[in-house]
Amino acid sequence: MTLALSPFDDPILSGLVGDDDVASLFTPSATIAAMVRFELALSRASAAEGFVPEAAVAALERACATFAPDVDALRQGTMRDGVVVPELVRQLRMATGEPHAGHVHKGATSQDVIDTALTLRLAEVASIVRRRLRIVDGTLGDLVERFGDRSLTARTRMRRAMPIVAGDRIAAWRSPLLRHRNRLDEATRDACVLQLGGAAGNLGVFEGRGPAIAARMGSDLGLRVPERSWHSQRDEIVALAGVLAMIAGSVGKIGQDIALMAQEEVGEVTLASGGGSSAMPGKVNPIGAEVVVALARFAAAQMAVMTGSLVHEQERSGAAWTAEWLVFPQICAAAAGSLAALTRLLGDIDTVGAADA
Amino acid sequence: MTLALSPFDDPILSGLVGDDDVASLFTPSATIAAMVRFELALSRASAAEGFVPEAAVAALERACATFAPDVDALRQGTMRDGVVVPELVRQLRMATGEPHAGHVHKGATSQDVIDTALTLRLAEVASIVRRRLRIVDGTLGDLVERFGDRSLTARTRMRRAMPIVAGDRIAAWRSPLLRHRNRLDEATRDACVLQLGGAAGNLGVFEGRGPAIAARMGSDLGLRVPERSWHSQRDEIVALAGVLAMIAGSVGKIGQDIALMAQEEVGEVTLASGGGSSAMPGKVNPIGAEVVVALARFAAAQMAVMTGSLVHEQERSGAAWTAEWLVFPQICAAAAGSLAALTRLLGDIDTVGAADA
Amino acid sequence: MTLALSPFDDPILSGLVGDDDVASLFTPSATIAAMVRFELALSRASAAEGFVPEAAVAALERACATFAPDVDALRQGTMRDGVVVPELVRQLRMATGEPHAGHVHKGATSQDVIDTALTLRLAEVASIVRRRLRIVDGTLGDLVERFGDRSLTARTRMRRAMPIVAGDRIAAWRSPLLRHRNRLDEATRDACVLQLGGAAGNLGVFEGRGPAIAARMGSDLGLRVPERSWHSQRDEIVALAGVLAMIAGSVGKIGQDIALMAQEEVGEVTLASGGGSSAMPGKVNPIGAEVVVALARFAAAQMAVMTGSLVHEQERSGAAWTAEWLVFPQICAAAAGSLAALTRLLGDIDTVGAADA
Amino acid sequence: MTLALSPFDDPILSGLVGDDDVASLFTPSATIAAMVRFELALSRASAAEGFVPEAAVAALERACATFAPDVDALRQGTMRDGVVVPELVRQLRMATGEPHAGHVHKGATSQDVIDTALTLRLAEVASIVRRRLRIVDGTLGDLVERFGDRSLTARTRMRRAMPIVAGDRIAAWRSPLLRHRNRLDEATRDACVLQLGGAAGNLGVFEGRGPAIAARMGSDLGLRVPERSWHSQRDEIVALAGVLAMIAGSVGKIGQDIALMAQEEVGEVTLASGGGSSAMPGKVNPIGAEVVVALARFAAAQMAVMTGSLVHEQERSGAAWTAEWLVFPQICAAAAGSLAALTRLLGDIDTVGAADA
Repeated sequence: MTLALSPFDDPILSGLVGDDDVASLFTPSATIAAMVRFELALSRASAAEGFVPEAAVAALERACATFAPDVDALRQGTMRDGVVVPELVRQLRMATGEPHAGHVHKGATSQDVIDTALTLRLAEVASIVRRRLRIVDGTLGDLVERFGDRSLTARTRMRRAMPIVAGDRIAAWRSPLLRHRNRLDEATRDACVLQLGGAAGNLGVFEGRGPAIAARMGSDLGLRVPERSWHSQRDEIVALAGVLAMIAGSVGKIGQDIALMAQEEVGEVTLASGGGSSAMPGKVNPIGAEVVVALARFAAAQMAVMTGSLVHEQERSGAAWTAEWLVFPQICAAAAGSLAALTRLLGDIDTVGAADA
Repeated sequence: MTLALSPFDDPILSGLVGDDDVASLFTPSATIAAMVRFELALSRASAAEGFVPEAAVAALERACATFAPDVDALRQGTMRDGVVVPELVRQLRMATGEPHAGHVHKGATSQDVIDTALTLRLAEVASIVRRRLRIVDGTLGDLVERFGDRSLTARTRMRRAMPIVAGDRIAAWRSPLLRHRNRLDEATRDACVLQLGGAAGNLGVFEGRGPAIAARMGSDLGLRVPERSWHSQRDEIVALAGVLAMIAGSVGKIGQDIALMAQEEVGEVTLASGGGSSAMPGKVNPIGAEVVVALARFAAAQMAVMTGSLVHEQERSGAAWTAEWLVFPQICAAAAGSLAALTRLLGDIDTVGAADA
Repeated sequence: MTLALSPFDDPILSGLVGDDDVASLFTPSATIAAMVRFELALSRASAAEGFVPEAAVAALERACATFAPDVDALRQGTMRDGVVVPELVRQLRMATGEPHAGHVHKGATSQDVIDTALTLRLAEVASIVRRRLRIVDGTLGDLVERFGDRSLTARTRMRRAMPIVAGDRIAAWRSPLLRHRNRLDEATRDACVLQLGGAAGNLGVFEGRGPAIAARMGSDLGLRVPERSWHSQRDEIVALAGVLAMIAGSVGKIGQDIALMAQEEVGEVTLASGGGSSAMPGKVNPIGAEVVVALARFAAAQMAVMTGSLVHEQERSGAAWTAEWLVFPQICAAAAGSLAALTRLLGDIDTVGAADA
Repeated sequence: MTLALSPFDDPILSGLVGDDDVASLFTPSATIAAMVRFELALSRASAAEGFVPEAAVAALERACATFAPDVDALRQGTMRDGVVVPELVRQLRMATGEPHAGHVHKGATSQDVIDTALTLRLAEVASIVRRRLRIVDGTLGDLVERFGDRSLTARTRMRRAMPIVAGDRIAAWRSPLLRHRNRLDEATRDACVLQLGGAAGNLGVFEGRGPAIAARMGSDLGLRVPERSWHSQRDEIVALAGVLAMIAGSVGKIGQDIALMAQEEVGEVTLASGGGSSAMPGKVNPIGAEVVVALARFAAAQMAVMTGSLVHEQERSGAAWTAEWLVFPQICAAAAGSLAALTRLLGDIDTVGAADA
């Protein structure tokens, strides 16, 4: 319900506004697992390039197989260091033991771990969103087949304008989502890349083997390897957030239209069910329609933070980077959640347009 | 850490950006408890005014004493109804049993419950924030005593301007927080009121006993009773959010200044500790300074949503109201969290200004 | 029209979205006049306190009586210095001539001039907005008298809920505006103060006579004198912007409602006239209703910038201060413009509610 | 200066924050000229397809050759109709005279004219921005040549981290701008298209000749012809705005870095000139550095409005569309203005990094 601190994974409210699949990607354990994947890939690639001994890989793999992070210590470490990585590395090194503890995380910096752990998840977010876009497109296609020829009134500036058919309006809902799917593919391809730069961001600490290590890591993790590290270059990330926010926006338009069409006096849409009221049990509310409008407004405002976080001081800005963390996962959840809510809403539609067309 | 869906109550990241006291106010159980308080107060007041039988109160009180909500059903209900209240009322009625089930929630509407459950918590948020403001003020006062006379360079437009003393700069940090305390008192007094309007928002369903019931409920819950219900009048709520966002903003200014003063070449502030780096163990980062800047930018952007949600359709807008839910608790957490982070940061300060003043 | 760079003073579009009275306060000549007022008040106060010779006042007054600024040079100066003041002072000193040129602006800094020139105008903005609020309140009162008893359907979540009367809905429009009027008075009183600090912001350059000079200036300019300069303490300014944005928001709510009520099928409001269409000459559009919604969304988003500009580095942040300039005058124009548009819209209302009530 | 209602074309302040070339595209006369181009192209295409007589084209061309719009009437018309088009068409028809007055604008709707008049200009904005991006890239390339090998300290979280060379940091400035250039090309290609739909948005009024007329108009105006009209599908427009806002953001990062590098104690950049101070004539301020940060924050916040305006009701939302008008031209000006300010700033750089590298 309502008034959770974390609407997108609150046990009650997340059912309304969130998306369980996306939520599962951003739990603490999923985040730690993604960071551990980074460390393992780094270790393997570093060993293959002779930057750490082969035996260090086996030691880390053994440690990871049974690694149970001390979450309280991770929390304390994050408060102290601003990032979880130093403490997580300390725990991983402890689990790995000597003589290989020092080979864990060797050459990497916190941002390498966190940004890669982000892009690994963003690729999965994109898959989820793409799947939900396909479902919505299919459902809209069904609506066109069933009701596309029915008559509807084009409305401009909140007034009746000209006769159209339902298919005209549904087409205007559908086309942006198709374009967003292409944008999403492109933005995901560009943003979901490895991050590896080391403390200075220029791979200097890898003694010339940085590019080769990066190439192996990318192949291990299924991530493209960019020309350089992008510690302070957040444009690909912001561009992807922009696509997700636009998806929420275009879904919001559909919701707004359905809410208007479902008004009793207008009756251009009839809904099979819908939300109830505690005061008026028989009342049917177009819940999903309103939820997607709220999510659209929410996601839009977060773009002020994401776009503003391009102003990223020097080689790494703790302020700009932390600001990203505060909003990007929520933008992902809002986009996926709005598609999920729209799917439920479209499933409730009984009729569109007037039967007498 | 980084990349939680809900930064303010993630087990790891919340230590950095959040506030445990505020978080505890917005858990599902705290939310349900606040709503149950509303229903109890309504029942008692309604019985006192003869709108429900006295025996109904006892039945509900008995039910609440052992009430264990079915959270999954609440989630399903929220997805269906857009608000948790209809399902919660159903469960409360079931627990109350006949013949009094129908007297539970009688006359009230979902928004009465949720908005009152919000303002009950906002009053507590305000207490927490007020307390944190007092602590910060005390710490800044200590800094003035210890370092107020030390020399500092006034800097304008990122350039050295004129000699000042450290006390000048600290005074410019302190004054806005004092003013915010007054603003907070005033905004809390205005916003933390009872919501009671019934389905139409005009108390019509209470058969003339609405005002008397409201008066009793306000006294029971410790909330002022407004002249009318404010279902669609969100200005007091937005004004309070504005004060909280401004607090985060003014704290962000202090953080930004400290980050600049702590630069090695500038050395106007020295920090006893600070965040470490996974790549450079000896490096000391002004973590708290950056975190509060991030929180300031975050809270500022949420005001676009809050202020925009004043555009609240008709007697109750699901879209505008849901948008509030998505951001208001997070604004509370950001304000309190920024004060908590600042307190930790100020505690790390070893010196301010030059000793040779 | 549409697509002006400066919607609020574009010769065509400003009629729709702007307010001529507010626009006239922010023309280049009005801005220069306000800055000249500051310099004159400073000169008089400084002479009275013996900080500059009495003859310097007369020389400056003579110069100002016929002062014709070289606007191109002011533009060049602003590009060079980031503020207009150094070049304006150079021109004023040239016009004043020797031996008093050096007494012009003595002790003050650019920000003293610009911030005071802002608060002088904000006080006038507040008067305009207060007047427009009063007009709207009167018009709403008239609507209550004429149609308050007519029946209307309360609508919640975009669905018909319960019967109410038109007076119920109009009361929910009116109350927030009354509260905003009080907020505006308070915020104006707090924000519309003198700025005088000198280069370091601490009046140091005035050789002990700073407070006395400030007191005389305040009395001359009709501005309250704050305890200290507020070069880097922007909270009063942000608070005032917040009230103006909330006004636009509450007006937007009225517009949204009227657009919904005016839908042909709903017919809860009928409009005497309204915008035409180039394609359908007979169509009547609720132009003002939509415009105020757009202005509400616009003003809300600007609060992200205003609130964020509280993060003001050191003794003066060129970045945060310039950001204020980019949005604050537009927030003023949006608030006043939305009230003007609402006044026109309310004037077009023929009926509210159903006659058969 | 400072505190103009329209910072981007104020005679004084626009020199600091704006771009004259972009400003010239959004004057009333440029807007009217673009709309007249639409009407001429429509007339020619309609005649070629037999939808209006050939003689109507000549009559309209004659009228346009000497057309002097009545700007006051356009303002009145915009206030009345919400768009300038009905009154502009009235004036054009009057100028064309009988018997061809009725053939002017035949079949088109206001939004066709305004949106096409927008995309015509956006294509020019893109050219300007692309040119400015190329200049900045060249200047950054020069800096790399001159100072690329000089030593610099990588700074992470506002602390000294590791030695790098100046070329490393400049590369991190340069790469996002190169990517933005590609994004801009793509977004411009997608967004700068013809709008033609007629009153219902489906070309229905053109009696089957709509597609052919649109094809001819596109070729006449140099605009791609989309598959359908996009009256309520604003995603291409929002995507282009997003690229422009990101450009401002990435430029802001460069400015932020330069402001930090230019601090006297840091001295990683020295500036030949810079803004002066009215109180301290010798002080050199990194004006451009701060201005671009302010523009980045401004543009970022406008994305909340632009992305939110995707929630566009029905076949045309006056509210969402007007909201676009309030911010899109300003986003264009901010992007171009930030590149212009950066060019001036980079031109002022004397040295980057330490000579002893």
